[in-house]
Amino acid sequence: MTDTAFQDFYPDQLSYCYGCGRLNDKGLQLKSYWDGDETVARFSPRPEHMAIPGFVYGGLIASLIDCHGTGTAAAAAYREAGREMGTEPPFRFVTGQLSVRYLRPTPLGVPLELRGRIAEVKGRKVTVSITLAAAGETCASGEVIALQMPEAMLGTSPAPAGP
Amino acid sequence: MTDTAFQDFYPDQLSYCYGCGRLNDKGLQLKSYWDGDETVARFSPRPEHMAIPGFVYGGLIASLIDCHGTGTAAAAAYREAGREMGTEPPFRFVTGQLSVRYLRPTPLGVPLELRGRIAEVKGRKVTVSITLAAAGETCASGEVIALQMPEAMLGTSPAPAGP
Repeated sequence: MTDTAFQDFYPDQLSYCYGCGRLNDKGLQLKSYWDGDETVARFSPRPEHMAIPGFVYGGLIASLIDCHGTGTAAAAAYREAGREMGTEPPFRFVTGQLSVRYLRPTPLGVPLELRGRIAEVKGRKVTVSITLAAAGETCASGEVIALQMPEAMLGTSPAPAGP
Repeated sequence: MTDTAFQDFYPDQLSYCYGCGRLNDKGLQLKSYWDGDETVARFSPRPEHMAIPGFVYGGLIASLIDCHGTGTAAAAAYREAGREMGTEPPFRFVTGQLSVRYLRPTPLGVPLELRGRIAEVKGRKVTVSITLAAAGETCASGEVIALQMPEAMLGTSPAPAGP
């Protein structure tokens, strides 16, 4: 597994995402890494992230798949271009389409493991297939179609207003 | 628009969902209502719910669509059965499949409006189509395939462990 998370290479102005921004101190701060040709992220839901007591709510699962998907897309774009992550200009992706299948209830109280596989890199579009497992059992699967963020949105964002 | 939110009819043990449970005091507490044959919910994202400064993160959008979808499915099942919401036995749905299309960036700082339409009621499965708009402009659309929760999960849940 690589040492530095994909999200830790994002430029500051793109690091406020509630799901995965290292500068969003109320957010989930998801961290994704290469593991061979797959990508991996681990996340421990908070006690309040329940659907019913004992099980994780579906919106969190969708959020984790979404952010792991766009992070994986960025990493794949650098790899495809033969560049190291963090080199300029930055690749950063937004989600065009997200789909999630909930295969079984996801238990709360154990770390979740997300695994991403690059299904396709085509121009500015990257498709990522993701599974989410708890205690070794796959509980959800999903697909993220990620689109490269327009250059106009990179580096021109205002500082966040703050809470 | 009806007076009482669908989620306020859920039995206590099913009211801890982070997205829509009235008893989850850290959660989003989404509230959904009938508006004719459509359902509607309004939600004001918190400042930290950003993707990049000024825009809502995709995971929140997926969460709102998910919870509005399962709430709409429950309301549709009562209506289909000719029963008032809140009568026994309760109908409660879980998500089998969720898909979201992000059509344009969703601005942060204005209330979001979700509208649901019942696409199909078939046995224990209800399919709901949903749009999410900000300032009158549709920013995302989605579909929730909701499945009626097994009776064994209703009323047998332990009390939540608490944070």
